[in-house]
Amino acid sequence: MQGIHGGDIYRNQVKIDFSVNVNPLGMPEAVMEALKDAVGSSGEYPDITAEKVKCAVSEMLSVPQEFLLFGNGASELFMAIVHGIQPGKTVIPVPAFYGYEYAAGAVHGEIIYYPMKEEAQFALGEDFFHVLSEDTALLFLANPNNPTGKLIDRGYLKRLLKHCKEKSITVVLDECFIEFCGRGASMLSEIEEYENLILVRAFTKIFAIPGVRLGYLVCSNQELLKKVGRQMPEWNLSVFAQAAGGVCVKQLDFVEQTVAFVKKERQFLEEGLSKLGFRVFIGEANFIFFQSDLPLYELLLAQGILIRDCRNFRGLQDGYYRIAVRNRQDNEKLLKAIGEIREAAWNKLE
Amino acid sequence: MQGIHGGDIYRNQVKIDFSVNVNPLGMPEAVMEALKDAVGSSGEYPDITAEKVKCAVSEMLSVPQEFLLFGNGASELFMAIVHGIQPGKTVIPVPAFYGYEYAAGAVHGEIIYYPMKEEAQFALGEDFFHVLSEDTALLFLANPNNPTGKLIDRGYLKRLLKHCKEKSITVVLDECFIEFCGRGASMLSEIEEYENLILVRAFTKIFAIPGVRLGYLVCSNQELLKKVGRQMPEWNLSVFAQAAGGVCVKQLDFVEQTVAFVKKERQFLEEGLSKLGFRVFIGEANFIFFQSDLPLYELLLAQGILIRDCRNFRGLQDGYYRIAVRNRQDNEKLLKAIGEIREAAWNKLE
Repeated sequence: MQGIHGGDIYRNQVKIDFSVNVNPLGMPEAVMEALKDAVGSSGEYPDITAEKVKCAVSEMLSVPQEFLLFGNGASELFMAIVHGIQPGKTVIPVPAFYGYEYAAGAVHGEIIYYPMKEEAQFALGEDFFHVLSEDTALLFLANPNNPTGKLIDRGYLKRLLKHCKEKSITVVLDECFIEFCGRGASMLSEIEEYENLILVRAFTKIFAIPGVRLGYLVCSNQELLKKVGRQMPEWNLSVFAQAAGGVCVKQLDFVEQTVAFVKKERQFLEEGLSKLGFRVFIGEANFIFFQSDLPLYELLLAQGILIRDCRNFRGLQDGYYRIAVRNRQDNEKLLKAIGEIREAAWNKLE
Repeated sequence: MQGIHGGDIYRNQVKIDFSVNVNPLGMPEAVMEALKDAVGSSGEYPDITAEKVKCAVSEMLSVPQEFLLFGNGASELFMAIVHGIQPGKTVIPVPAFYGYEYAAGAVHGEIIYYPMKEEAQFALGEDFFHVLSEDTALLFLANPNNPTGKLIDRGYLKRLLKHCKEKSITVVLDECFIEFCGRGASMLSEIEEYENLILVRAFTKIFAIPGVRLGYLVCSNQELLKKVGRQMPEWNLSVFAQAAGGVCVKQLDFVEQTVAFVKKERQFLEEGLSKLGFRVFIGEANFIFFQSDLPLYELLLAQGILIRDCRNFRGLQDGYYRIAVRNRQDNEKLLKAIGEIREAAWNKLE
């Protein structure tokens, strides 16, 4: 698994981790308190129906409880979707989160990778509609996409959902980073219109609790939801996940603060990297995707700074990197370190 | 789900819970401390390879790390086994834990239920070998069994494993309660001999941490293990599960204390129930299975005491109950309450 995912702090000496894309503000204090309290409940079985957290998320999103399904992280939901649908053919635009490919590969069935090209700023094009033919059962899509950070044009996305509905293609829209993009970016408003749409979200990124494992999906198609839910084990949400979830939904101010904070720091990093001459791809998420011909991963790791080398993303080659937006102090350190690496390289070449 | 499983404290007013079969000594103090410490790590991704806990369990069991696979509770492992094997035909002796049926039912394929009869003390008989024919792919078996608490005769079990090996039947042997039965009861010693054997265990029962979710399986067949592991999502073990697991494996004294404690209290309850005239089935686990014609579940619940009504176990009808072995004070309260219920019933009938 080494290198497949970011954030391997367990097998690296890391002082600052830019490889993991969680909220730079860290976990809200109230969530930390809820987790501490939950220790006292770990001697009890978790609620098998996750009633409280389901009720809370239903209220937060203004969707019926029946539209919701919770997982031990979004990863469990991706796997359950694949197990439930058993797709004969799955389409995944790349570069993308490795988890879609991992989940789709758990069953027999073809996987088609649609390359999003650098020339097109890694966006989906009109030709993508032709890939999505009747024999496609499942499409994995992320909004914003990881590692590129790009939001899909809303009009385009609606046309895509409509096309997929007509072709009976189930669309898994991964919105694990959507909260960072501010209000109105989500496709939640379309959830009743498109019965073929499964929105997947997580508490992991926006509330900075990757260690807890809590994700959910929203889908208005009861038959589909039942099929997917049937593939998950009982008691899949720990008492910690349920406790954290119940508190997270109340942190609306925190989410707003986050959006403002991330926007500012993302611009700071984008400008810094652009000034240093790197090709930065414009995104809307809490991370930045850029290109460099320098072996930045190794050189930064030698200084205890871990970034995401994207060379093992399908559809990318050497020279693409992803960095999380962190706080100003860390961001300055990173820009300084990258600047020095760049200068040293130029000095050697001269 | 109501009634399907024990321990629904979320939708009942319960003062003493005899329906959940966890260690009556509760969670070891060191595990509680590890969980508290883990709160501080919940902002980090859990180790995707679960290296530390894998290493610790490998040492504890004296099996190679490659034989181990960890799950978000044993339930996730049962589901992954079914997803990995895709059995055309599964055999489940009943009465048994509902989870086997739930997992097996997630895929298409036949499920054969073999009834263990009361006349035979709910033991497996010689005729069971005939059920296990070539077309069987998977057998779910529990040792000791739940709800009956019965250990399978060791000689019989070895013959059964051999038979299944010859017929290419994968045997899932659920040892989630095996630690309560003392040393030497496990089939771990046979793990290399039988490549068709998957031992499933959990930290849930013996360390009283059902809210944490941590189980593991042991299997010497690398191909089979890989197939099963491929069906589970990434990061399936939370930082809490990994922290707890790492400490649990060191609690050998605690396990020994538990065995002695449970034995004494089990005998106390068995004798008490027998004296009251109930038919008690002799078991070796941390719970007791008995028969009564009185509506004990409802009458005890009215007093805030929750026991497991076994009427919805496949293969059982009305009148079978399971109670966990708890501490002396609780056990005395239960016997007193049952005694009074019985007396009141007799007085009414006279």
